[in-house]
Amino acid sequence: MSDDAQDLGITESKSHKPGEWYAEVVQKADLADYAPMGGFIVTKPRGYALWEGIQDALDGWFKETGVDNAYFPMFIPESFLEREKDIVEGFDPEVAWVTQGGHDELEERLAVRPTSESIIAPFMADWIRSHRDLPMRLNQWCSVVRWEATETKPFFRTKEFLWQEGHTAHATDGEAWEEVWTRLDQYARVLEEVLAVPVLRGRKPDHDKFPGAETTTCVEALMPDGKSVQSATSHHLGQSFAEAFDITFADEAEDEQTAFTTSWGLSWRALGAMIMTHSDDQGLVLPPTIAPTQVVIVPIWQADTKEDVLEYSEGIATDLETAGFSVELDDRDERNPGFKFNEHELNGVPLRLEIGPNEVDDEEVTLVHRPDSEQTVADRDGIVDAVDAHLDQIFEKLYDAAAANLDENVREAHSPEKILGTIGQHGGYVKTPWCGDEACETVIKDEIAAEIVMQPVDDQGGASAGEPVRPDEDATCGVCDEPADEIAYFAKSY
Amino acid sequence: MSDDAQDLGITESKSHKPGEWYAEVVQKADLADYAPMGGFIVTKPRGYALWEGIQDALDGWFKETGVDNAYFPMFIPESFLEREKDIVEGFDPEVAWVTQGGHDELEERLAVRPTSESIIAPFMADWIRSHRDLPMRLNQWCSVVRWEATETKPFFRTKEFLWQEGHTAHATDGEAWEEVWTRLDQYARVLEEVLAVPVLRGRKPDHDKFPGAETTTCVEALMPDGKSVQSATSHHLGQSFAEAFDITFADEAEDEQTAFTTSWGLSWRALGAMIMTHSDDQGLVLPPTIAPTQVVIVPIWQADTKEDVLEYSEGIATDLETAGFSVELDDRDERNPGFKFNEHELNGVPLRLEIGPNEVDDEEVTLVHRPDSEQTVADRDGIVDAVDAHLDQIFEKLYDAAAANLDENVREAHSPEKILGTIGQHGGYVKTPWCGDEACETVIKDEIAAEIVMQPVDDQGGASAGEPVRPDEDATCGVCDEPADEIAYFAKSY
Repeated sequence: MSDDAQDLGITESKSHKPGEWYAEVVQKADLADYAPMGGFIVTKPRGYALWEGIQDALDGWFKETGVDNAYFPMFIPESFLEREKDIVEGFDPEVAWVTQGGHDELEERLAVRPTSESIIAPFMADWIRSHRDLPMRLNQWCSVVRWEATETKPFFRTKEFLWQEGHTAHATDGEAWEEVWTRLDQYARVLEEVLAVPVLRGRKPDHDKFPGAETTTCVEALMPDGKSVQSATSHHLGQSFAEAFDITFADEAEDEQTAFTTSWGLSWRALGAMIMTHSDDQGLVLPPTIAPTQVVIVPIWQADTKEDVLEYSEGIATDLETAGFSVELDDRDERNPGFKFNEHELNGVPLRLEIGPNEVDDEEVTLVHRPDSEQTVADRDGIVDAVDAHLDQIFEKLYDAAAANLDENVREAHSPEKILGTIGQHGGYVKTPWCGDEACETVIKDEIAAEIVMQPVDDQGGASAGEPVRPDEDATCGVCDEPADEIAYFAKSY
Repeated sequence: MSDDAQDLGITESKSHKPGEWYAEVVQKADLADYAPMGGFIVTKPRGYALWEGIQDALDGWFKETGVDNAYFPMFIPESFLEREKDIVEGFDPEVAWVTQGGHDELEERLAVRPTSESIIAPFMADWIRSHRDLPMRLNQWCSVVRWEATETKPFFRTKEFLWQEGHTAHATDGEAWEEVWTRLDQYARVLEEVLAVPVLRGRKPDHDKFPGAETTTCVEALMPDGKSVQSATSHHLGQSFAEAFDITFADEAEDEQTAFTTSWGLSWRALGAMIMTHSDDQGLVLPPTIAPTQVVIVPIWQADTKEDVLEYSEGIATDLETAGFSVELDDRDERNPGFKFNEHELNGVPLRLEIGPNEVDDEEVTLVHRPDSEQTVADRDGIVDAVDAHLDQIFEKLYDAAAANLDENVREAHSPEKILGTIGQHGGYVKTPWCGDEACETVIKDEIAAEIVMQPVDDQGGASAGEPVRPDEDATCGVCDEPADEIAYFAKSY
């Protein structure tokens, strides 16, 4: 939609003003726009196409692993929310309430779902009778509303956001744990293999877990500015919801048992993490795995060469489309090649093919990578294989850069001063033994707004699944120096 | 989830108590369940899979014809709703209002979207600058809320319902008309080719069109009980929303022009129409085009034949899956074949393959159609082709029966008594010339709750597109006998 050349430039710098830069990339690359009500955004077609890319991948994996999609009402009666006490305490301050229907006041307020455990659990209770009904795995793609009074940041902080929420019930604690890991692995996979964003897997400290959960596991991604993004969570809910909502089943001996439940969600925040990780001062950068347009062909002609250049370009476009790539041939007359280069860079097209009279004469094609403008000349003959290989290279460049940033930015420190100093100087994660007392987190949080974003866990399945990885036996807390048997990753976070 | 044999029987009869029968089919076939708040339902996995079938078809056609998916906020500020006067008058009585966010009263009430013209139009106004930005075609898959105080009928009448809503802007009236027809055609196609439900295309009378619309076009399906179902609508909004929200563009001469807009939607009501059309007293009937399981194989064994029968059945299942059919081999030990037959009939599996020792010995397969239990024996050798042909036959049976019902139930009548008598006796449509006065509809409506559900239109594109088809020049109104230049289809409707 950007019609004017000056619209194409990103004016803010990623390294100097990451917040302003991010907002500008999102808007100028036509991903999203701000709604008139504070805290809400409009997801424009280019942004929604990225969300559809995530949906396609994740929904397929869910279905392969026994999950059924369903749809539950967007409203939850207040009395249902109140049945699980942690949920009501956790979400009550941020619920949007429907109090009027038509011209009438409602007898009972309805919460616009902030998350759907409280409306799904009673149906599970009704539908599950016997061990043969387990496991039950339900998922819905929808939006939820959380009335937080913070600054709007598209895909990171909005009052309404798009996500999927999975809800499952199992006969045993062990099966519930397996479910938690299966989903966390799929989340890590979509971040790493689709969005080219490497992640750390872990659990949240007890004081920061999901309301009602026994354990909250998470995938965390490190942004270039040194802050961590919680990109998805997978919760072991133990029996708290099952007890509150009577989710019981007859086991093989016909004895009544209480089920174990899990819930897990990935929101468009994963999209935000991807945009922030890869994009640059020229605009959006997308891995080829999710880019709606993977290849743009920009023909460069004079009046006397136009026909040849276009014909040659069209042939290449056809070959690439036939091979399954998504290709745009940008043959607009009213724009010059330089404008087109800038525009496709802004929009994050991974690979640009430049074709002028020289390329036609030499039966070659010039390929240019986004984001680093690396340029190669390839033979026309093997163009399909060349494009395939270059798209792989581009993915690897993006992934490797992000992985290097992550590797370099996990540091150890022991003492409040060193923890504060390390995060203050480098950002990233500081790994340190922790006594488990929230007060020790507060010491750090009060100084520089860094907190424990993650604790490494045993993710090998088995009996100790989900248990914190322990430090050495004689370890002491990196903050208070008392004996410590947990490990904490401190970081600033989005 | 139905564990008990008695759960499998539909106790109500389609012909005697269609309302109760429908509710029972929906629940026993596990399509949906009633939520605790009146007017809301839960869409269970089997029901949601059908909605996904519709989405897959329609979303693909939308994308092929220039539509981009997007997502707009679910809340609309009251002041936005008020900008187009017809919308506020039309929807105000049935809006659910959010008045509290967290612990605070909101300064301005937010409507939970009943439809999104009022939140999309202002963004179109902002995004559209030049004729080069047109046409703009946006669609979203979401739910909307309309606070109607009527009895809940799953997929037909619910306060929250799933739908897609398309919103487009065009440079000319003619292009807007083309859009309206394109979408109406796609709706007719999804009903007819995916759901096997033949439809009539037409327009709503002026007094019944969408608030703010210049013309509302619709597809209507006739149910076996003689009532019509409005299955989707496509609205030409003229310039009313464009004027209310300033959707203007610079034309090629750089003069400012006002755009023409359309909106169009198909809800899960189309699903309701399909369920009601085809299903019977044994339960759900699904056309193979949308059935999540197209073929069920029921092996029939004794102890000494089990191994052979199962091996033979597995081979056939593999062949059919390889050929792209969705197949279930029901090899449960704890259920007998009769129970399985009933269960798969209840769930609407179109084709059942019965395989016992005789079939193994003779290298044959017994095929049984849903819904009419027509039975054929086919050779094992050509089983893939046979299944393909039988699924086509089943589709045709369903479509043809519904088409015959429609054909037989469009009657002409001229006089209030004859209109009332014809609808009273046969149901279906009565086609009659109409003077255009709503009062004449009221005469009929007050007596038997039949109304003008549709008027035939010129759907050939061109200058008269959307214009009512006219009766003979000397025609008089079927109700008041005054001169009539319109044609009306009266019917009872859902």
